[in-house]
Amino acid sequence: MTSNSHAEYPPELSQAEEQYLLSNLKDWSIAHGLAVRPAPSFVEPSQDPAGVLASTAPVTLFPSLFPRSCFEEGMAIQKAYNELYSGISRDEPWLQSIVEELVDIDDFVAKLWRTHLEVKKEGYVQELSLGLFRSDYMVHQDPSLANAAPGLKQVEFNTIASSFGGLSSQVSALHKYLLTIDAYPSSTSPMIKEEGLRQSNSASSLAKGLAAAHHAYGSSRASPSLCVLFVVQNPERNVFDQRHLEYALLKESGVRSFRLPFSETLAHTRLDSDRTLIYTPPNAPSTAYEVTTIYFRAGYSPDDYPRDEDWSARLHLEKSRAIKCPSILTHLAGCKKVQQVLATPHSPHLKRFLPNDQVAARVLETFAPIYPLDDSEAGKEARKLATDASSATKYVLKPQREGGGNNVYRKAIPPFLEKLPETHWPAYILMEMIEPPPLENAILRNGELQRGGVICELGVYGVCLWKEGNGNDKKGEVLESWEAGYLLRTKGDQSEEGGVAAGFGAVDSCCLVDG
Amino acid sequence: MTSNSHAEYPPELSQAEEQYLLSNLKDWSIAHGLAVRPAPSFVEPSQDPAGVLASTAPVTLFPSLFPRSCFEEGMAIQKAYNELYSGISRDEPWLQSIVEELVDIDDFVAKLWRTHLEVKKEGYVQELSLGLFRSDYMVHQDPSLANAAPGLKQVEFNTIASSFGGLSSQVSALHKYLLTIDAYPSSTSPMIKEEGLRQSNSASSLAKGLAAAHHAYGSSRASPSLCVLFVVQNPERNVFDQRHLEYALLKESGVRSFRLPFSETLAHTRLDSDRTLIYTPPNAPSTAYEVTTIYFRAGYSPDDYPRDEDWSARLHLEKSRAIKCPSILTHLAGCKKVQQVLATPHSPHLKRFLPNDQVAARVLETFAPIYPLDDSEAGKEARKLATDASSATKYVLKPQREGGGNNVYRKAIPPFLEKLPETHWPAYILMEMIEPPPLENAILRNGELQRGGVICELGVYGVCLWKEGNGNDKKGEVLESWEAGYLLRTKGDQSEEGGVAAGFGAVDSCCLVDG
Repeated sequence: MTSNSHAEYPPELSQAEEQYLLSNLKDWSIAHGLAVRPAPSFVEPSQDPAGVLASTAPVTLFPSLFPRSCFEEGMAIQKAYNELYSGISRDEPWLQSIVEELVDIDDFVAKLWRTHLEVKKEGYVQELSLGLFRSDYMVHQDPSLANAAPGLKQVEFNTIASSFGGLSSQVSALHKYLLTIDAYPSSTSPMIKEEGLRQSNSASSLAKGLAAAHHAYGSSRASPSLCVLFVVQNPERNVFDQRHLEYALLKESGVRSFRLPFSETLAHTRLDSDRTLIYTPPNAPSTAYEVTTIYFRAGYSPDDYPRDEDWSARLHLEKSRAIKCPSILTHLAGCKKVQQVLATPHSPHLKRFLPNDQVAARVLETFAPIYPLDDSEAGKEARKLATDASSATKYVLKPQREGGGNNVYRKAIPPFLEKLPETHWPAYILMEMIEPPPLENAILRNGELQRGGVICELGVYGVCLWKEGNGNDKKGEVLESWEAGYLLRTKGDQSEEGGVAAGFGAVDSCCLVDG
Repeated sequence: MTSNSHAEYPPELSQAEEQYLLSNLKDWSIAHGLAVRPAPSFVEPSQDPAGVLASTAPVTLFPSLFPRSCFEEGMAIQKAYNELYSGISRDEPWLQSIVEELVDIDDFVAKLWRTHLEVKKEGYVQELSLGLFRSDYMVHQDPSLANAAPGLKQVEFNTIASSFGGLSSQVSALHKYLLTIDAYPSSTSPMIKEEGLRQSNSASSLAKGLAAAHHAYGSSRASPSLCVLFVVQNPERNVFDQRHLEYALLKESGVRSFRLPFSETLAHTRLDSDRTLIYTPPNAPSTAYEVTTIYFRAGYSPDDYPRDEDWSARLHLEKSRAIKCPSILTHLAGCKKVQQVLATPHSPHLKRFLPNDQVAARVLETFAPIYPLDDSEAGKEARKLATDASSATKYVLKPQREGGGNNVYRKAIPPFLEKLPETHWPAYILMEMIEPPPLENAILRNGELQRGGVICELGVYGVCLWKEGNGNDKKGEVLESWEAGYLLRTKGDQSEEGGVAAGFGAVDSCCLVDG
């Protein structure tokens, strides 16, 4: 990655080269739905009240260089991650022990758990669960070692609303197209080769996951019409990303789906006496659809629950017979505390879910050391590291809650903790910073071209459909499991937060390079 | 078309129905490139200097009702039209007799003809010609006859830059999608049936035409790299329409193409000594492409030739060895004077090009009577009809030049002619108004929804590749000919000009109905 030829990547473009690349990129992206609704700062809503405008999604001009060995390892171990997280979701007692450490400090986790307990009281009526996961990594290359081999280190594991599976398929196709039409100057030919540009099949593969759940649900009890329900935020600027999954689901599997804003759940759905979930489309109130699968693209953030009614809505959905993607326990399995206890050095937990030692060792290899900030031995050690100005520079402090946006980095950690009452410290974990190799790229975002150092995050999608354990079979079983394509997300290395839709990054694709 | 059930079409929508239909339409259109760059009146260029914004192309919410028999006749006779117009293009003496009547009054035609003569002086070096035609029709139903059977009447025949082949494929897919997801209320089910919604394969089929020319050109003389050149206007709001053809050409036939603004022709192309056309992309000035086929999406309007240099550019392209789509003679074959002499009652001309009487009769059936405004017998009759306020109401006055935008309708004709010196009258033709049956639809355009009476124009695309005649074979021969999908263009019946990109209409698809 740091050899001489790569240092020149991407190349400087002449004005004519840049014009050619950009005009082709801008037209291709709109022609293929690699798009977002424009940010209010770009187009004021009053200018386009009907919402017909769209813009090119934030994208990189070039595919970013990515070590082939790391990419292939990430793809190869996704099935192990599917097994790990579906196993955690099925192990309520273990999950309870994790959640109990959080309920006093994380109101959102507490409310999710209470919702689970309420459903449990009545009894769950659906034994199938679907996960559309995304495991996020960065390449780590120890800067203090010359010629250190690059390795993959996990940033986080998403169990709910894993986004960009739709746009990711489009951006890898875009970069391939740009290569085909010679939009990349010939100086890049040692790096950008057809063979090294990996097409992400995420849109189709995630849609197949939804179709698998839909079909596993079985035939209808209440209505001749079955559907998948996309529970969404409203408005949603990243709507095309979700739509590509819907279109693939319809086109490739013939499965109908509807979009329902989370805040309108109770208005348009009801439970039958056997807790079959019935969706009545507002446009056709006399038609009842039986919901086979609820796909949450909302409900993952406390911001989605401004009213008590929103918690009633979540409970209502969880009680239903529909397959949840994800179930509330799977949602909870994604909290950072879980990642932390798995990645705490010498943790016994990984083995519990991955009995095969070799598989567990490969997964463990992708963990960056993570410490709790509690009273345990590891926690005490972490407190020392985090409050010391010099050692803190190697770490990031992350809230255990989902959603991003609140990480504290390196030398900002000690003053941050100083202001925070110690009782609140356990709401955070301390994670060793991943040190990605230096890379450059150019990003087109809201019509602005930015160029410079970047940080890339590889997300590997996984689809997993499983059956919960019951009296006879405590552990349940995995029915379907596959790796489902990838996402590369790239941001300027000046910003330290990810999240393309949140405003700091761009979708990208991998240009695999050896060594 | 006027039975009771159709009178209710399209139905009134409840607010929820309209919201469902529109949100699905708006998202699908952007996700599938059924888009245009926004008009400056909608988004000021200064707001988006990089040009990353796009909006849903103007579309109808519903497919318009269209008589099945008319649709099928239009599709069926397209190959006859291909034969007719490629025959006209190959008959220079006949074309000369037409053009001679125009050169004094139509400077544009005169210049095109002079360009032809200049090339002829040096000798044409390419015997192949490609036509991507579009024959435009309206349904005519005589309002004075009860229960008159609907017939198809030709509005015009386009031999150059026939547009909307790209978007047309997308809009018919959109309407099918909206039917599939039940966006059309159940009251429409007697009319909108899967079987009656005709998918237009125009994008793919027109691209196949370009590929056929490209391959017929033969192997390269000057360069290892061959390409098709799209000669375009700049800027071009309707760029995605053209791009869909480019993408299909690359994806389905593996043929490279470039977009070159007409005004930059001389800067980036040159002729080899044997008049091979060489294109040097500005982004890769050391790479030379041999142009097999020039696809004109510019150069059809006098506005494209503001400088003398632009005529030099046209001459330069015409002299080249590349296959022209269209050649300058084919371009001239599309002038309205040709349509007029063919459609003048009792004209002997049609038979010259369509020796098969049955074929000629079917084509003739699609002509609306057209009169010259010259000194011929028919012309004298026409002058009477056009200057009389009561008879003029059945006619439209059209300039013989291409481009639209200057038609004069019905009672506006007499005062218009009064102001025009009689020597200029022969620049116009008088055409009997086609009387389309009353139809309604709703159009989404620049985010505004308009509802009401509409007029539909059916365009049928045709691909024709032929060889010019020479000493031994005066008539030449048609090598390839096929019908290439359709376009339905719909405008409010308040405006009397067509042209979706020009600002008055929308792209639409056919919902075939019997009777």
